[in-house]
Amino acid sequence: MTYCVGMVLDKGLVLMSDTRTNSGVDNISVFRKMHSWSVPGERIISIMTAGNLATTQAVISKLEERSKAPEERSNSLLELPTMFQVAIELGNLLRETIGDTQKQNGASGGSRFTASLILAGQIKGMEPRLFMIYPEGNFIEASFDTPFFQIGETKYGRPILLRAYDRTMSFEDAVKLLMVSMDSTLKANLSVGLPLDLQVLERDVFEPLQERRIEAGDPFFEAISSSWGDALKSAFHSLPDYSMDSPSIIP
Amino acid sequence: MTYCVGMVLDKGLVLMSDTRTNSGVDNISVFRKMHSWSVPGERIISIMTAGNLATTQAVISKLEERSKAPEERSNSLLELPTMFQVAIELGNLLRETIGDTQKQNGASGGSRFTASLILAGQIKGMEPRLFMIYPEGNFIEASFDTPFFQIGETKYGRPILLRAYDRTMSFEDAVKLLMVSMDSTLKANLSVGLPLDLQVLERDVFEPLQERRIEAGDPFFEAISSSWGDALKSAFHSLPDYSMDSPSIIP
Repeated sequence: MTYCVGMVLDKGLVLMSDTRTNSGVDNISVFRKMHSWSVPGERIISIMTAGNLATTQAVISKLEERSKAPEERSNSLLELPTMFQVAIELGNLLRETIGDTQKQNGASGGSRFTASLILAGQIKGMEPRLFMIYPEGNFIEASFDTPFFQIGETKYGRPILLRAYDRTMSFEDAVKLLMVSMDSTLKANLSVGLPLDLQVLERDVFEPLQERRIEAGDPFFEAISSSWGDALKSAFHSLPDYSMDSPSIIP
Repeated sequence: MTYCVGMVLDKGLVLMSDTRTNSGVDNISVFRKMHSWSVPGERIISIMTAGNLATTQAVISKLEERSKAPEERSNSLLELPTMFQVAIELGNLLRETIGDTQKQNGASGGSRFTASLILAGQIKGMEPRLFMIYPEGNFIEASFDTPFFQIGETKYGRPILLRAYDRTMSFEDAVKLLMVSMDSTLKANLSVGLPLDLQVLERDVFEPLQERRIEAGDPFFEAISSSWGDALKSAFHSLPDYSMDSPSIIP
């Protein structure tokens, strides 16, 4: 499993992904699910991946044209004129990669090779954009109404995002929010695991304002994780008290 | 979909279920998913259901022997000597009901008729017990380590249960906790909906201490729902601040 979130703020974009992959609970590994390319001063494009690891690695390798000698490669992500065209290209590549593997495996292919992507980035002269790309190759774009996308194990970490997200929030608060959402997911699903990758993309900067790996034992993440338990308990106790005698009266 | 939770406390058992059933988003109805039988002073047994509605209604009807004339009925739930035997009986009935429907529908039967149950109750002279019964007819019992069971749409409402549950908590706090967990689920999944059914079973009482329906517009539930948003936001802002400059230092 996997958990990745991408979020649009007024100030830019914030992305976080876990790194655990598993084929059964007895076969877990660490793989990067966040990939990023930039032309400093001109564009930055990041992709987060969920789903079959062979599929998502194939997509990333094809994007970078790794089948060619290094001097002959030309990454189309760095040439397409708009983020919308990048999304189309990436969607096609994803659909073809899944389709090819399924075809090669015949009836046993099924939907085992499926994957989804979050695409985030900005090209100079245009707005920062955030897309979710489906295995079918089509995609949706984040809007003011739905300003974040999640892929993988999305449910445990969703309630806090719905409640605490605010598009005017600072990058610092956004990182904290993503950590809390990630922590709720880590606590409930063993197949989502540390370390985490974090990327903060400030509007009109075209290179990461912050890009780091949060390792197991990171003191800040641990502080968030342990304080959140207490904070939730206090939040819970701050709610109005239920009365068994007159259950619909608010004290 | 459905969301039901059953919880063991030192003081007894607390159960909550939603009432929405849907066959597509354009066909939703209200059906009771909590069913209860008691012999005052001797035993109380409650069942919550998730899954195919025809299956779960068939199980409940068979339990009550509704195919017989009223005077010939004898509900086995009210006669079996232990909760463990009740769980076995109920598991067999569930497995047979699912199996029969699948057999009658041949290859198209698939797993469409599946269902799960939560069984809660107490028989005089024994402890209050809580079981989760699987479509295969087998079951597990709650313990100090896993003191609550959820069925249906379990993920959105789980983080707060994991963080705020405490077996010594009062019934009032437990009801509040279940409301918060339910509210997180309602906010995220349209196929879980009001009204809610609530049952509080005090240890050694053998009739519900409280049994009520929480309707849409219930002032207490609305107060919980709106205060929880604010409480979560304050909880979030009470966490240590992240610093972009020295991300692993706790301020």
